[in-house]
Amino acid sequence: MNAEIIAVGTELLMGQVVNTNASFLSRELSLLGIDVYHQVVVGDNPKRLLEVIEVAEKRSDLVILSGGLGPTKDDITKQVLAEHLNKKLILDTSTMDKISNFFENSKRVMTENNRLQAMVVEGSTVLKNETGLAAGMLLNQDKQAFLLLPGPPSELEPMFIKEVRPLLMDGRPNENHLVSRVLRFFGIGESQVAAELDDLIEEQKNPTLATYAGKHEVTLRLTANGSTEEACHFLLDKVEAIIQQRIGGYFYGYGEDRRLVNVVTDLLNEQNLTLTAAESLTGGSFQHLITSVSGASDYFKGGIVTYSNDAKTTILGVTKKTIEEFGVVSAECAIEMAKKAQEMFDTDLAISFTGVAGPDKLENKEVGTVWIGIATKETAFAKEYHFGKGRENNREKSIMSGLDLIRRVLLNLPIEQKVL
Amino acid sequence: MNAEIIAVGTELLMGQVVNTNASFLSRELSLLGIDVYHQVVVGDNPKRLLEVIEVAEKRSDLVILSGGLGPTKDDITKQVLAEHLNKKLILDTSTMDKISNFFENSKRVMTENNRLQAMVVEGSTVLKNETGLAAGMLLNQDKQAFLLLPGPPSELEPMFIKEVRPLLMDGRPNENHLVSRVLRFFGIGESQVAAELDDLIEEQKNPTLATYAGKHEVTLRLTANGSTEEACHFLLDKVEAIIQQRIGGYFYGYGEDRRLVNVVTDLLNEQNLTLTAAESLTGGSFQHLITSVSGASDYFKGGIVTYSNDAKTTILGVTKKTIEEFGVVSAECAIEMAKKAQEMFDTDLAISFTGVAGPDKLENKEVGTVWIGIATKETAFAKEYHFGKGRENNREKSIMSGLDLIRRVLLNLPIEQKVL
Repeated sequence: MNAEIIAVGTELLMGQVVNTNASFLSRELSLLGIDVYHQVVVGDNPKRLLEVIEVAEKRSDLVILSGGLGPTKDDITKQVLAEHLNKKLILDTSTMDKISNFFENSKRVMTENNRLQAMVVEGSTVLKNETGLAAGMLLNQDKQAFLLLPGPPSELEPMFIKEVRPLLMDGRPNENHLVSRVLRFFGIGESQVAAELDDLIEEQKNPTLATYAGKHEVTLRLTANGSTEEACHFLLDKVEAIIQQRIGGYFYGYGEDRRLVNVVTDLLNEQNLTLTAAESLTGGSFQHLITSVSGASDYFKGGIVTYSNDAKTTILGVTKKTIEEFGVVSAECAIEMAKKAQEMFDTDLAISFTGVAGPDKLENKEVGTVWIGIATKETAFAKEYHFGKGRENNREKSIMSGLDLIRRVLLNLPIEQKVL
Repeated sequence: MNAEIIAVGTELLMGQVVNTNASFLSRELSLLGIDVYHQVVVGDNPKRLLEVIEVAEKRSDLVILSGGLGPTKDDITKQVLAEHLNKKLILDTSTMDKISNFFENSKRVMTENNRLQAMVVEGSTVLKNETGLAAGMLLNQDKQAFLLLPGPPSELEPMFIKEVRPLLMDGRPNENHLVSRVLRFFGIGESQVAAELDDLIEEQKNPTLATYAGKHEVTLRLTANGSTEEACHFLLDKVEAIIQQRIGGYFYGYGEDRRLVNVVTDLLNEQNLTLTAAESLTGGSFQHLITSVSGASDYFKGGIVTYSNDAKTTILGVTKKTIEEFGVVSAECAIEMAKKAQEMFDTDLAISFTGVAGPDKLENKEVGTVWIGIATKETAFAKEYHFGKGRENNREKSIMSGLDLIRRVLLNLPIEQKVL
């Protein structure tokens, strides 16, 4: 079965409203195993709406129309559909009672146009609107079904979940389960993931594979379908094993919402360790990220931003000699920053960031050159990175790489090219 | 002229991504006087994409395709269009150079599929991608134009504003000038702006008014059209005067890209002043914001994040007595943090942030209670804020309010309820 979602409303075409109904419905339908091949938006214009319906009914089994069920002149959806199907609009008395009660209880005058919200296409199953007034409806025709839903997400979403989903589930074979698994990677681009998994993506069927480029992270969603949940997990395990073998070095965790920072803060918590940071080019953004996780005070006391050379020496205590001899964009400076921060804030672990955010070169080093230092009570090292252009990009990649470095330290994973 | 927006991407049809590109483009096109009659979403499927293009070119003058310009196998937009129009894809050397440089600078291997991002439909105007790799393109055919844009909003939006808008403006009849003016406000919500300007928005014709709710800022775009630029400015001046009279207290500057932080850093530069910060609940995000402006080293040396009480006393030097007597969520603590930071970093100005980000109460103070302190070499004061729920929201509102406070101090504007 495939579905098409038609959102009706000039406000969508003016860009005043974002079409979140389409993404909500698509997500819900995909979980029911119903493919959505088209989403369409059209204005409150009878001629163009009719044309869109005519195209949709030729190519789609389930045509979903959202919006245009309200009481005003520009609400035209069910009128256009009824006329097209040569059906009458009839009054649904139960909806009408609800509307009358609403106006009675709220002591407001019910204007005549509100009756329109209780009119439904004859022959359709009426869908209750728990959070609004306009009735929804599902109309089964010979070749396709039409589903009409109200436009406001606060009405559409509960109506879909409580009224529509059970009706659609009834129509599905019982033996069909769908299970998704999301793998998360850092330090590898989407194009490289796609290249490494080229054959899997090419021949994908069950499970399906989809890559998404997040901000400096790539996620890979595997979705299997099978007769039981166990059968789905078996299929997922098999493909995941191949993926882990190829790009497992970049893998950092599972889950839709689990960011790299969550993995790191959980590790700090589990290992009962405290952390501080001394930031130059990143200007406080690493500490901002760490403290974005609630409960950060358990492992993060504070840290320092030493943007100028002067602040690095007079306040943090990096020696002038280090800066004169090696510059601030150096392993030596990064290591000393981390060591001094560790001492100053008396923590188990300290990280430092120093480098060239851009737009201009610094100490004749290319924009994007960054040293990240790590110090514990016993040891310290630094690692060099070369990001690219773009000030904000260099800063963001620095803090993400810093997180990954801490993760590797805490998990005793290999770290290449570190300078001791 | 009318336009149709086709978003290409299976992730949209799965509901994993919300189609904000459609609303962004619709809004921008409507401001240019271009009507959007249809928005469509189709998956990464050549046959269905072709069908959608064939329908669109029959009914629309400008067909905009977003997404599917990337390096992977499911990126098919330009291939399908080129084949349909019987045109070749050719290598754009300037884009190719950019891609090669990107991989060289970031010391990553450029997989062969990245070349695809530099391939363009022959005969098209290549559109630069400032924030990504894939080139965009505009192709003028006999009856309609095709505009191809990358899918990620972070690439599509700047490309539209900087590359596409000027091209579309050029195509307009000469006697018809369009001039826009963007006014920016802080400390007032979008609905309140709309309420205050209700009559102007209702009767708008020339200039048109459009409000946008940015993150904690509201922008208002006025667009006038007239026979000369002067005539446009005359119309804009007239309406702006009314607006400034009503909500000028919240106005902080003009321009599409001019954030509150830019206004503040420009003022620091002009007045030749230096700044530092001591941050508790904001965890470094104020300093991150200040250093996001390039050239920050002229006025920002560094600062400190004192997340724990211990860090506030032992490292910054806030007295234990202050914390014991008044708590950390207090005017006294905010003022002392600012004073100590001013001394430590020896700056003209210091700002401090202390309060309850949430999710839990602190010192029995409600989530969202925040004190911001300001210290100069001579004086100090603090101001209390009550934001709302949501940890990240409270942190963001804090740093934005801090910027506005500095702006008011530097411009000698009135500040209500400050505690000395």
